[in-house]
Amino acid sequence: MTFVGYFDDIRIGERAELGSHTFTADEIKRFARQFDPQAFHLDESAAKRSHFGRLCASGWHSASTWMRLAIRYRDKLATEHRARGQPVAELGPSPGFRDLKWLKPVYADDTISYATEVVEKRESKSMPEWGILRYKNTGTNQAGELVLSYVSTVFIQRRPGSA
Amino acid sequence: MTFVGYFDDIRIGERAELGSHTFTADEIKRFARQFDPQAFHLDESAAKRSHFGRLCASGWHSASTWMRLAIRYRDKLATEHRARGQPVAELGPSPGFRDLKWLKPVYADDTISYATEVVEKRESKSMPEWGILRYKNTGTNQAGELVLSYVSTVFIQRRPGSA
Repeated sequence: MTFVGYFDDIRIGERAELGSHTFTADEIKRFARQFDPQAFHLDESAAKRSHFGRLCASGWHSASTWMRLAIRYRDKLATEHRARGQPVAELGPSPGFRDLKWLKPVYADDTISYATEVVEKRESKSMPEWGILRYKNTGTNQAGELVLSYVSTVFIQRRPGSA
Repeated sequence: MTFVGYFDDIRIGERAELGSHTFTADEIKRFARQFDPQAFHLDESAAKRSHFGRLCASGWHSASTWMRLAIRYRDKLATEHRARGQPVAELGPSPGFRDLKWLKPVYADDTISYATEVVEKRESKSMPEWGILRYKNTGTNQAGELVLSYVSTVFIQRRPGSA
């Protein structure tokens, strides 16, 4: 099973819908005050006068929300697997990601649906108990437009004894 | 002057020290509860048992903090420039970034110093009033170790009449 199984059991092309999130104006401003205090993330009138035309979320906010839904999805699956006595692979640290694209603004009251898909896998040469997965992660708004994409890398445990 | 001047006046290699931030345990947990609820970002004992060995910040937290310090730096410069009657270039949207690397964990009580450096500039073909800048952005801990780096892209206004 994707995302909780061992590296050896994960197939390229496996995809998961992680759920969706609606970005309220209040939440957009709260995040912006903490991390990205630019006028078009803080104030409706200023946003109207900006190149965005309307209040919109910080790109860091829409990207961090991908992370939140991915963790929630994995935790739920892991709990179900453990309840059935199935093993859950350990995740290692993420060394980072590539090619983050903010393709369209995320406006106040937009609902973004997040997904992830396995695009690459390889064994770790230096750490034979681990494999390396690359995922393509996306956010799509209620009009079906892609607003966010990036490719993340993560270490994942190999099936014990497989290396 | 870098970062508030027009595209035409910015030189490759210009660098700015954006300031530093100390990541307290409380703040690490608060961010993690919102966006990255993994045990090693939420709880000291669980972190001790993890591959990190100690409570450490979400990578999204350390990266978003780069953004906060960059905005604060630019706002301060822009205010000074305006006070002297100097123009401040408008920034366009960021289309995204590349090659984000989490090189070392950011542990509780680490102080990270952030910086940015212009690494590439080119005129926009489709929008002659704008130029495109690439910055290499970094975070370095109190031991001088690079913990974070990524390359961001931003549109910036050209000097009026230069296009």
